[in-house]
Amino acid sequence: MSQTVRQIAELRNSVRRWRRKGESIAMVPTMGALHAGHLALVEAARQSADRIIVTIFVNPAQFAEGEDLGRYPRAEAGDLEKLRPFDPDIVFAPSAEEIYPQGFDTAISVGGPSSGLESDTRPQFFTGVATVVTKLLLAGLPDLATFGEKDYQQLLVVKKLVRDLNIPTTIIACPTIREPDGLALSSRNAYLSADERAAAPLLFETLGKLAGQIGGGAAIDDATAQATGDLERAGFDIDYLTVRNARTLEPVSDPATEPLRALVAARLGSTRLIDNVAVPRNSDADK
Amino acid sequence: MSQTVRQIAELRNSVRRWRRKGESIAMVPTMGALHAGHLALVEAARQSADRIIVTIFVNPAQFAEGEDLGRYPRAEAGDLEKLRPFDPDIVFAPSAEEIYPQGFDTAISVGGPSSGLESDTRPQFFTGVATVVTKLLLAGLPDLATFGEKDYQQLLVVKKLVRDLNIPTTIIACPTIREPDGLALSSRNAYLSADERAAAPLLFETLGKLAGQIGGGAAIDDATAQATGDLERAGFDIDYLTVRNARTLEPVSDPATEPLRALVAARLGSTRLIDNVAVPRNSDADK
Repeated sequence: MSQTVRQIAELRNSVRRWRRKGESIAMVPTMGALHAGHLALVEAARQSADRIIVTIFVNPAQFAEGEDLGRYPRAEAGDLEKLRPFDPDIVFAPSAEEIYPQGFDTAISVGGPSSGLESDTRPQFFTGVATVVTKLLLAGLPDLATFGEKDYQQLLVVKKLVRDLNIPTTIIACPTIREPDGLALSSRNAYLSADERAAAPLLFETLGKLAGQIGGGAAIDDATAQATGDLERAGFDIDYLTVRNARTLEPVSDPATEPLRALVAARLGSTRLIDNVAVPRNSDADK
Repeated sequence: MSQTVRQIAELRNSVRRWRRKGESIAMVPTMGALHAGHLALVEAARQSADRIIVTIFVNPAQFAEGEDLGRYPRAEAGDLEKLRPFDPDIVFAPSAEEIYPQGFDTAISVGGPSSGLESDTRPQFFTGVATVVTKLLLAGLPDLATFGEKDYQQLLVVKKLVRDLNIPTTIIACPTIREPDGLALSSRNAYLSADERAAAPLLFETLGKLAGQIGGGAAIDDATAQATGDLERAGFDIDYLTVRNARTLEPVSDPATEPLRALVAARLGSTRLIDNVAVPRNSDADK
């Protein structure tokens, strides 16, 4: 049965025991409010490592003033229940004080893929993510850690962080898990009213259509403008809807040869949703 | 005999072998141009660990535009010769490209003790130090690393960095090593002309007198003003000469109870020298 651990020192004791036995370790960092997307990350971790650490920590440093830190869903008992069938070795659920003790004052900024998109509306977001991910990875020193493609920009930032700082962990990307109607699973979906929930799948539908058009040779600007109109008419308030280089998130200069990703962030009422899909290669369209 | 290693991957292979045998590891980060101060750090490391990694890397990120990166002494063959009697297991001397590969774009800023003093004249210095120290420690994952008190502010910043980010390394502070006339050993002493070298010991002499006066109950402001005058009359161009809380480097609010440190940075001609000493406790003066 999983052990719930609150202290970094205690986590390290377990890790040290496992290491002495030559066991490999995977970490699944989460903010709790677990859904099937998180559980898929745990499952992926299980396939590649002997020991699994699931972390549950709602990181204050990645919420801006006025964001939903206060109302972000917290449900540890339910989370532990959901994790039970996956039997992680440790659920690491530290207090904010354990991660950010008095006097804490260090920040990690990652350039490259962190600029624009999410950063346009949440300027401190990726510094908060990079700092807490570094702390969690260094607390457990896992061989690998799983992150979801749902937060695609975050995934690229974490990969770059780990490479740039020589953090000895391999980052494994896992595909987005979706509702049957296509809506990407997110803890924030719980905020949606019934009407908003009914409208929400259009986000993925529109992204998929956009990606298909561009993969089929349509001009990025035209296809994006059309998709933007579709979403706005359905009541979405769009922060960004864009097609970028899938590895750098830079604007596309050569659509024929670059790997491409379509990404969106939009509000339905007061709920902000994000999603992204790969653009199929032109060559795929010829098949 | 020491092995010279250029690649992080190769360093990690050795570290993995040592770990499998249960051996403990110490790292001594240096910028080369080794002198007896560095060798004392190696000696201290040897006393506490089975395996020693000495790193030699002149870190471009901690030099500002117009600083002495270009003329900073580089002497790897001589450094290896000096290290021979201390027989470190590995001398890790990577290229700038190995540490900062193309696209590298991550920075670590440490608050607290990094503000003021050195940062006043070298604003990016501690971000450069924190980033490279993190990379080196994560490349080797030593149990402990030795740093000299000569760079006292840097020592406090590194200690804070390691604590704040959960880097699994203990930082060991080693006392400043001095010439017989009191001048703190520094690779930059090589820049001094004969006249400047003759004047340089006044820095330590003045610091020691200042610390003694304050330890004996003198007012910090008066004693500091007098010491400043002494140095300026001898031709020193002072960046700072100050007494601070020895743990936080914040200005002193209660001299009777806080641990105190006197710190100085001053130029002799074009050479910038720094030094620092502990202020003896008032209670010591009563003995």
